[in-house]
Amino acid sequence: MSVLEPSSSHRRSDGRTASELRPTHIETDYITAPLASALVKSGGTWVLCTASLDEQQPPFLRAQKSQSGWVTAEYSMLPGSTRSRSSRGSNGRSKEIERLIGRSLRGAIDLSKLGPRTLTIDCDVLQADGGTRTASITGGYVALALAVSRLVARGALSEDPMRSCLAAISVGRIDGVPCLDLPYEEDARAEVDMNIVMARPLAQPASEPQFIEVQGTGEHGTFSKVELDRLLSLAAIGIEQLMALQATALKNAQRAG
Amino acid sequence: MSVLEPSSSHRRSDGRTASELRPTHIETDYITAPLASALVKSGGTWVLCTASLDEQQPPFLRAQKSQSGWVTAEYSMLPGSTRSRSSRGSNGRSKEIERLIGRSLRGAIDLSKLGPRTLTIDCDVLQADGGTRTASITGGYVALALAVSRLVARGALSEDPMRSCLAAISVGRIDGVPCLDLPYEEDARAEVDMNIVMARPLAQPASEPQFIEVQGTGEHGTFSKVELDRLLSLAAIGIEQLMALQATALKNAQRAG
Amino acid sequence: MSVLEPSSSHRRSDGRTASELRPTHIETDYITAPLASALVKSGGTWVLCTASLDEQQPPFLRAQKSQSGWVTAEYSMLPGSTRSRSSRGSNGRSKEIERLIGRSLRGAIDLSKLGPRTLTIDCDVLQADGGTRTASITGGYVALALAVSRLVARGALSEDPMRSCLAAISVGRIDGVPCLDLPYEEDARAEVDMNIVMARPLAQPASEPQFIEVQGTGEHGTFSKVELDRLLSLAAIGIEQLMALQATALKNAQRAG
Amino acid sequence: MSVLEPSSSHRRSDGRTASELRPTHIETDYITAPLASALVKSGGTWVLCTASLDEQQPPFLRAQKSQSGWVTAEYSMLPGSTRSRSSRGSNGRSKEIERLIGRSLRGAIDLSKLGPRTLTIDCDVLQADGGTRTASITGGYVALALAVSRLVARGALSEDPMRSCLAAISVGRIDGVPCLDLPYEEDARAEVDMNIVMARPLAQPASEPQFIEVQGTGEHGTFSKVELDRLLSLAAIGIEQLMALQATALKNAQRAG
Amino acid sequence: MSVLEPSSSHRRSDGRTASELRPTHIETDYITAPLASALVKSGGTWVLCTASLDEQQPPFLRAQKSQSGWVTAEYSMLPGSTRSRSSRGSNGRSKEIERLIGRSLRGAIDLSKLGPRTLTIDCDVLQADGGTRTASITGGYVALALAVSRLVARGALSEDPMRSCLAAISVGRIDGVPCLDLPYEEDARAEVDMNIVMARPLAQPASEPQFIEVQGTGEHGTFSKVELDRLLSLAAIGIEQLMALQATALKNAQRAG
Amino acid sequence: MSVLEPSSSHRRSDGRTASELRPTHIETDYITAPLASALVKSGGTWVLCTASLDEQQPPFLRAQKSQSGWVTAEYSMLPGSTRSRSSRGSNGRSKEIERLIGRSLRGAIDLSKLGPRTLTIDCDVLQADGGTRTASITGGYVALALAVSRLVARGALSEDPMRSCLAAISVGRIDGVPCLDLPYEEDARAEVDMNIVMARPLAQPASEPQFIEVQGTGEHGTFSKVELDRLLSLAAIGIEQLMALQATALKNAQRAG
Repeated sequence: MSVLEPSSSHRRSDGRTASELRPTHIETDYITAPLASALVKSGGTWVLCTASLDEQQPPFLRAQKSQSGWVTAEYSMLPGSTRSRSSRGSNGRSKEIERLIGRSLRGAIDLSKLGPRTLTIDCDVLQADGGTRTASITGGYVALALAVSRLVARGALSEDPMRSCLAAISVGRIDGVPCLDLPYEEDARAEVDMNIVMARPLAQPASEPQFIEVQGTGEHGTFSKVELDRLLSLAAIGIEQLMALQATALKNAQRAG
Repeated sequence: MSVLEPSSSHRRSDGRTASELRPTHIETDYITAPLASALVKSGGTWVLCTASLDEQQPPFLRAQKSQSGWVTAEYSMLPGSTRSRSSRGSNGRSKEIERLIGRSLRGAIDLSKLGPRTLTIDCDVLQADGGTRTASITGGYVALALAVSRLVARGALSEDPMRSCLAAISVGRIDGVPCLDLPYEEDARAEVDMNIVMARPLAQPASEPQFIEVQGTGEHGTFSKVELDRLLSLAAIGIEQLMALQATALKNAQRAG
Repeated sequence: MSVLEPSSSHRRSDGRTASELRPTHIETDYITAPLASALVKSGGTWVLCTASLDEQQPPFLRAQKSQSGWVTAEYSMLPGSTRSRSSRGSNGRSKEIERLIGRSLRGAIDLSKLGPRTLTIDCDVLQADGGTRTASITGGYVALALAVSRLVARGALSEDPMRSCLAAISVGRIDGVPCLDLPYEEDARAEVDMNIVMARPLAQPASEPQFIEVQGTGEHGTFSKVELDRLLSLAAIGIEQLMALQATALKNAQRAG
Repeated sequence: MSVLEPSSSHRRSDGRTASELRPTHIETDYITAPLASALVKSGGTWVLCTASLDEQQPPFLRAQKSQSGWVTAEYSMLPGSTRSRSSRGSNGRSKEIERLIGRSLRGAIDLSKLGPRTLTIDCDVLQADGGTRTASITGGYVALALAVSRLVARGALSEDPMRSCLAAISVGRIDGVPCLDLPYEEDARAEVDMNIVMARPLAQPASEPQFIEVQGTGEHGTFSKVELDRLLSLAAIGIEQLMALQATALKNAQRAG
Repeated sequence: MSVLEPSSSHRRSDGRTASELRPTHIETDYITAPLASALVKSGGTWVLCTASLDEQQPPFLRAQKSQSGWVTAEYSMLPGSTRSRSSRGSNGRSKEIERLIGRSLRGAIDLSKLGPRTLTIDCDVLQADGGTRTASITGGYVALALAVSRLVARGALSEDPMRSCLAAISVGRIDGVPCLDLPYEEDARAEVDMNIVMARPLAQPASEPQFIEVQGTGEHGTFSKVELDRLLSLAAIGIEQLMALQATALKNAQRAG
Repeated sequence: MSVLEPSSSHRRSDGRTASELRPTHIETDYITAPLASALVKSGGTWVLCTASLDEQQPPFLRAQKSQSGWVTAEYSMLPGSTRSRSSRGSNGRSKEIERLIGRSLRGAIDLSKLGPRTLTIDCDVLQADGGTRTASITGGYVALALAVSRLVARGALSEDPMRSCLAAISVGRIDGVPCLDLPYEEDARAEVDMNIVMARPLAQPASEPQFIEVQGTGEHGTFSKVELDRLLSLAAIGIEQLMALQATALKNAQRAG
């Protein structure tokens, strides 16, 4: 067995096997002030995702005289979300994550069907234990889809603009072993660290998810094509499970109101 | 009966009497990454308060060659905490609230017994429906007291530096009627709006709470001494109840761990 | 005699009794470039207040399609106004003071009668010896009222929008004694420190001034209801005298031109 | 032949085949004020890369009491580098690119052998026609390696800290065809856009380059595993050629002085 | 008579001849909080100059392990100092003026004799009617010289570091006529506008002042060498008078205490 | 022979005589993305000047309902342009230089003939060895004139708005000797340092250049009228040669297309 094939008996520091997700829960409508909200708990990583509606386009679309809508994202960690307090305010890292979340979410929606409005998805990390950007995408998608379904339900949209379901997960090589869904402790010492975003057309629920974003970094070493392939396979396993959790959360929320 | 004496039959839009608090809950250790945390829910206003420890003094105390500790506060509203999304980032209003929270909390602790360290109390509003600054003080006190009790328990402090219990509440005149604990709808149209912070020495649990801060504003009109007195009495009623909730939450948290 | 009743023989470090104002002068039209100006000298605290007219509403009123006017305030201390130089630029403290000044001044004017224009009251502290924010309100009112009287005189306003006269003063407990109008030396060591803003309708010159703002802080201790009452009474004594000085200054300025 | 197999006869708007690099030149010591510089011209994309030495560690390494060195990167586009002028100053995009460049370059050097100093690689885009971030990495590596060789030559380093050669290139799917090295016109309409950074140990010049960074985005669509594989193969073709150009440029520069 | 020779009968809009200064007064110790202050009134231009002492060197001198002192200047216009209100805060213009003031003042003092301390000269324009930068230099010199004389008097300096007296004035060509000391109305339409700073060694009180700064701008046209010479002669006339006013103000202030 | 008359045999550290320019080259269309560009190399000082067209007026001209155009300049040094790396970003010095460049360039063009558009001249210093601001003006003029000639050629302008040719040079007193065109080494120790901008009407090519800006500073000493005259004469010698180089560069560029 190659180093790349984790044995089923390999155990991580939190007891999981290499291809196991952390316990993951999605609570919709955790807060009710915004149009939609979802609290994602993925192990010790908790992200509150809200969707707020602005009945205006961003300036750049107005300037283009487009009738299209827009989806944008903001990401922030509460200062008390980590063991040692982090400063408030945006930095290079958070801007990069915001760009990733926004780009990914826009890949799941037909903006031309959204009409001349803006949906802002805020992803605020209440507690951080690794994988905050992927949890933000997974939860942000739920908040976005729930918000859109409410716009459809109240007749503001004549056609459903959602095209795909969308989820994200991290993978990485830890002590030579490819692992799914890294907590902070693993993320910090991973030789290779990847964030994978995948989408599946809502119209083809049986199809295989395809890539929307692949971001892999050899933080402490390079990686070969063989390793990359193994990591991508692991990610696909996690993504399928997350998409099932998202579907259930959305079904329940829409049933509830 | 004067206009200032609310009849027991006066009902507000949310069904409360004029001297009734909103349903209020304090959940300690809602998140566990920081030294201590408390989630306060006061009707639709939810504030997550965390206490983070830094084993360093702020620069101004180091410059004074003091051996004292420091307590500081930060306050922020999540963008999605309100019906119409608010922008991220600090502004004049949030700076003013931070100064109020920090000043109030420092009034409840003997900084010289805290030793050369800094406790930062972060008050992040998850959902806003009026009274976010007073809920921040009430919850921030719980996070602070819990953090301090843990420093005492682990032997980092030889003497308990907490001097008083501390809580805060809003009062205001709505349509001529003095009311306790204003939700956003009342706060926005209050003729007079007050925020009251009170403290009671831990050593004298039977004494009457005294004032630490009185901030009253005639947003849409002036107010007389008689009205001021009536509003302060209402505030004292609410403060007593909040102090009882705080004591229970702290007792349970300390028992739990 | 209780500790709260200062004997008439109690003398402060500057020779005043507890209920005495510092020597206070208001010079209108100190500078003549802006629409109106007033230089207030309250002991060693000197504030130059100017009123500048902008024939435009602020953006938020335009967005509301309101026809109302607006009064806003800015506050700043010259770097050389204090014994040890302070840095230029706005901070949390100055933002908080600006909000207080603006809110207070707006309480004295009927903005709907001002028409779609903005009056900006700039309060620049030339020299600081305690009480700069209350001197700013007292002087800012004179600059505002003088500016408005000039708009009326030149026919730009058909009706006088001023509703009340308005003044502000500090009070505090020093070494257990309630005192009026604190210089820096007292302010820095006050156990309790209050800033009081009061207004009296111009239409009822014989009525008692009522509160517009009450801001009390137990900087180094708490305060009881009895103490609060005593401090508020002291403030009222000072406010009455300041209103008389304002009226004289305005009458002379209007007579002069 | 599948859509994924570009026929050798497929021609792009600039006349290249799908697997052809743009004409690429690397001029070392273009300017001589800094320790080392390299001007990379890749078609219409010109990036001036400089390496500046600071005989100090960054604060975070000093705080760790590490003896290690550091390599950091800054990236900026001259305002006049594009057809329509861009504003000066850093933004989210440039911060993200700086992080990518810095991370990649650090992957090619043994920082512990650099000693307690900082090398800053500035990548200033003189003219932009797509692929500015990958050209910055390819050119930044040359500036870094040349700077390090000079530190070795002057005896400041006892051992050569360079571990790998390093280059980067973009690939993407344009009109369904995987293409290498996208100019702006292709980049703007690519369905999928990837930036690939690869490294090869200097000690194993015959080995296959491995991945340091893989960043793929489905800007206008998703991509399958098969497509990803084809794009990565194209990238490897380009990287091998760039590494040869780098080696020649470095050899000539070191021979020259 | 050439256009460049203003006839003695030429009258400006304010009644002055071409070579006449505006009425100019220098009031020392206008405020007493800082180490020294001077209020300069030059027609409608009023500048309050203060000198504040910091018993520390600026960081760049500490880094050089120099024992020298430093003089720096800040310049700002009060928002209400002009007919139409200007915004608070520094801009390109004010930074440029600060650099000019600081450079000029440092030319008049032997920094090595000042010892390891910093004198900050703040020039705050209370009212602006042209020539604010030159009035700042003329008044800033008085504040600086008075501050230094007090340091000498209290024994903090063993030797007087002042080397020269220093003053500044504007000149310009208005409607083809060279004029001294331009008010705003002339400054705005001047074809050529110059600011001249001159110094004379204190040790040679009978010598001709020499140039420290010459800044001439053809705002609306070019200027010949002949015109330049005529403007410089005019400036020298004004400078001599300002130096006499400075000397008198300083003598009186030093006599007073 | 006076100290002010440099003997023809005086040699500077780089071998030049006191009245000799550094080797100077102007390369037009160095980059082709913007409307026009010029790379000026003056000894070790290299400045890339680009002219970008925006078919809009700046807001202040729109507000005035003027039909005039505008020319503005930005100036920046690449961090790697100096021996010890400088930080990115604008500072007081660069703002002052931008104002000088913009003012000078506007002096050479009839803005009313430019039509309601903005030309931005970016001056980015690739390598710095003294005289970067004067090289920016000399090169910025070439970029501006070339851009304007292209607007004329494509029929966007019915009349040529260029009025004058324009060039700039530094002069200074080094060790008592007046010298032309100072490199960094001389600039840093110059007793007097001047930057001179001169213009000559295009319609009078045989006339003597006149002054647009004269900026002289006694960095380490004062200067007399006699010295000023000598420095201005030296500057005129350099300006004449630069104007010849500009004319040749422009003629070649226009011939080329």
